Amino acid sequence: METAKLALHTDKYQINMMYAHWKMGTHDRKAVFEMYFRKLPFGNGYAVFAGLQRIADYMLGLSFTEEELAYLEEQEERYEPAFIEELRRFRFSGSIDAVPEGTLVFPNEPLVRVEGRIFEAQLVETAILNMANYQTLIATKASRIKQVAGSDALLEFGTRRAQEMDAAIWGARAAYIAGFDATSNLRAGWRFGIPAKGTHAHAWVQAHESELEAFERYAEALPDGVTLLVDTYDTLGSGVPNAIEVARRLRAGGKELQGIRLDSGDLAVLSKESRRMLDEAGFPDVRIVASNDLDENIILNLKAQGAAIDTWGVGTQLITAADQPSLGGVYKLAAIDRGGGYEPVIKLSGNLDKVTNPGSKTAYRLLDPATGYAAGDYLALSAEAAPSGEPLRRIDPAHPYVKSVLTRYEAVELLQPLLRQGELVRDLPDLESIRCYHQQQLALFRQPHLRKLHPEPYPVSFSPELWKLKTEMIERVQDGGK
Amino acid sequence: METAKLALHTDKYQINMMYAHWKMGTHDRKAVFEMYFRKLPFGNGYAVFAGLQRIADYMLGLSFTEEELAYLEEQEERYEPAFIEELRRFRFSGSIDAVPEGTLVFPNEPLVRVEGRIFEAQLVETAILNMANYQTLIATKASRIKQVAGSDALLEFGTRRAQEMDAAIWGARAAYIAGFDATSNLRAGWRFGIPAKGTHAHAWVQAHESELEAFERYAEALPDGVTLLVDTYDTLGSGVPNAIEVARRLRAGGKELQGIRLDSGDLAVLSKESRRMLDEAGFPDVRIVASNDLDENIILNLKAQGAAIDTWGVGTQLITAADQPSLGGVYKLAAIDRGGGYEPVIKLSGNLDKVTNPGSKTAYRLLDPATGYAAGDYLALSAEAAPSGEPLRRIDPAHPYVKSVLTRYEAVELLQPLLRQGELVRDLPDLESIRCYHQQQLALFRQPHLRKLHPEPYPVSFSPELWKLKTEMIERVQDGGK
Repeated sequence: METAKLALHTDKYQINMMYAHWKMGTHDRKAVFEMYFRKLPFGNGYAVFAGLQRIADYMLGLSFTEEELAYLEEQEERYEPAFIEELRRFRFSGSIDAVPEGTLVFPNEPLVRVEGRIFEAQLVETAILNMANYQTLIATKASRIKQVAGSDALLEFGTRRAQEMDAAIWGARAAYIAGFDATSNLRAGWRFGIPAKGTHAHAWVQAHESELEAFERYAEALPDGVTLLVDTYDTLGSGVPNAIEVARRLRAGGKELQGIRLDSGDLAVLSKESRRMLDEAGFPDVRIVASNDLDENIILNLKAQGAAIDTWGVGTQLITAADQPSLGGVYKLAAIDRGGGYEPVIKLSGNLDKVTNPGSKTAYRLLDPATGYAAGDYLALSAEAAPSGEPLRRIDPAHPYVKSVLTRYEAVELLQPLLRQGELVRDLPDLESIRCYHQQQLALFRQPHLRKLHPEPYPVSFSPELWKLKTEMIERVQDGGK
Repeated sequence: METAKLALHTDKYQINMMYAHWKMGTHDRKAVFEMYFRKLPFGNGYAVFAGLQRIADYMLGLSFTEEELAYLEEQEERYEPAFIEELRRFRFSGSIDAVPEGTLVFPNEPLVRVEGRIFEAQLVETAILNMANYQTLIATKASRIKQVAGSDALLEFGTRRAQEMDAAIWGARAAYIAGFDATSNLRAGWRFGIPAKGTHAHAWVQAHESELEAFERYAEALPDGVTLLVDTYDTLGSGVPNAIEVARRLRAGGKELQGIRLDSGDLAVLSKESRRMLDEAGFPDVRIVASNDLDENIILNLKAQGAAIDTWGVGTQLITAADQPSLGGVYKLAAIDRGGGYEPVIKLSGNLDKVTNPGSKTAYRLLDPATGYAAGDYLALSAEAAPSGEPLRRIDPAHPYVKSVLTRYEAVELLQPLLRQGELVRDLPDLESIRCYHQQQLALFRQPHLRKLHPEPYPVSFSPELWKLKTEMIERVQDGGK
């Protein structure tokens, strides 16, 4: 139901290409497309893949309704009725292999590989990119924040600044995968089972005659565990003293105040002074929640200043990935069968870093059996045998003249089958499992790859066969082979 | 149907405040909330309000389903059954006044004013901000791009990099309001009636034995008016020559090639050289479409270099508002009736630019009858009589000591009634009318306010009564009145 009426969530050129293939009789040709990104966001050392649950739901629900078909019939392209009929029967009947959500991923690795009739594989490009680009971006941003916050609690507070409604809930889910503890968005909580948390707003305080009255009533109305927002008028002058007064009255009744929240001002100074006041009043267990345009850099700086903050409410900067609000993921044709079996294809482009890697590919993570740490990832053609212990020659595409042979390793394939003949072939993990799996993924990487600033680059190498194919194809195109 | 199951699209603290009001018996108090932003995005001289259609749909469809209520019953707050019953009956029964979509708006102006039971007005904060913040942001970004593009065609191409699906379609709509001519997203085209346009992708070329074959087949399959993507292998070496060859064959058959598209490389050099080649070959009417991470600055620079580009495909930078991906719109309590009529309220905060303006307010645009140009906007308390020709004292809140009296003006109220007792009181304009109205709005402003770089600030002044109320309330709070 959630995926109803998404068939038109695509770029018009996909429909035009489908139409042209259909008109020319090439629409049943089998093709392999791969989704990948070229550059890590935020200067981070890794990305966290997310979006696969939504992609699976979309693929399984994909079909055109009569209203959608009627809309297509009106287009200036004047699609033939038989093409509309073809769309009326449309179901995705191909295969998808993909990296599990929560996996640490790197540039140029195929994250979603789609194989099927080009007619079908072309339609889904736009939506797959739309979902995977955003969710991977936010999971990566959240993971950066989590690296800095350590064991402090992290709350996702971004809905009001999110880029419309889908971003709010799918961003909350991505943040939870990467280690956030809760969201303020109840719809995300309801749909995905993420714990939902909330304090109160300035409006609660303003709606009462006095701040003290507002605090008392809030604590009276809600069961144990309220957190009071103390910065409506004067944080240290009235907010914290009033919160302490309420904490005393609660304790007299056998209850405890859970926390206070700071939402403006100098969070380093205010948190330390609030902590001192709370401790002196006998409330060392009252937690201090901070919010106000926080990101990983501000959190790191506040911690360096000794800010007495236990819980971080992170909104705008996370939910919009404000310092880089898009992941440049692409979906590129890797191979096509024009009748004689799959042939690899390449695209050169005027920007050399946009040259594609030809052929259907897969990616392996090479683990060092002695330490358990990941030693690098390895891209190979799907048709190659999986590395199985023999010495492995790896080619660094930026420095192909350097020889590197790995002798002791265990190779784990990153892509897993998701769909075959359009049917789901494995149950996707639940959200808690994904979150747990992401923690396991992090544990495979040495700290220098994970640090926020100037991370040590993690090697992603090519198989000699893939490298040979790419260089030969570039040469052929440049010699005028196309 | 589009707005089904959005009641939980809110921050949990809204439900907690509703619960606390209900427990304390204050939930029927009438309140006025105002949505506004504090700072213009992108250093622009104005913003373009958008989002009202979506807000109206949301407000009219707002109710809790049984599944949503069951979810709330499970929360750690242990809401009482009678509260859940209250939510089961929930409908928005209040009033909304709002600025029409496409209006040029400025900081601190109420854009959406919600009046009703605090129980209802509190719930809708999060969703209203989520929708209005994003759509206004994108309409403003699109308007900047339109200022630079002039009469060139502008295509919205951003879906694959949009922050999830809602952003893609509502962003496309916002861009169309602000002067974009078409979108690539068919779902946006279908739902909103925006013209949908598309060319073809690199995959089309790669799927064929040769670029020339790919071009020929595309032109053969689609009726008049194809645009060919010429940068898959070598733009000037093969792409443009092959396109010219196809243009010749089309012409021989009585058809014309519509355009070529450049998607990489040096767009200034490539477009000029492509233009020369097309002109020399006898195709001066073939249009040149450019794409590749364009924004208003790149377009301006390309035009300054004399780039021969007729149509701009703008994606990522527009749909994510990449240089500032959020508008900091807020929704603040302005007045509350605790039994003795409405009382204005204020919030001070540790950041002085976050101090609110108290009381229910409205905004007027003051037009100069001699020129027709807008001379400034004017914020006043809703209870004040509308300015009707008498000399008008205006207070600049940044320089309140400067006297300014306007003697000749026509005052047009910016906010218009949308809902009364929860019912729509006017039909919202269709999208074409909004787009047209936006052009009329632009015509009210002198060019220095509209320019992209260092625009002349447009004055938004306070009525003396509003200014007096604010300064007195700040003083009262600082004297310990709360």
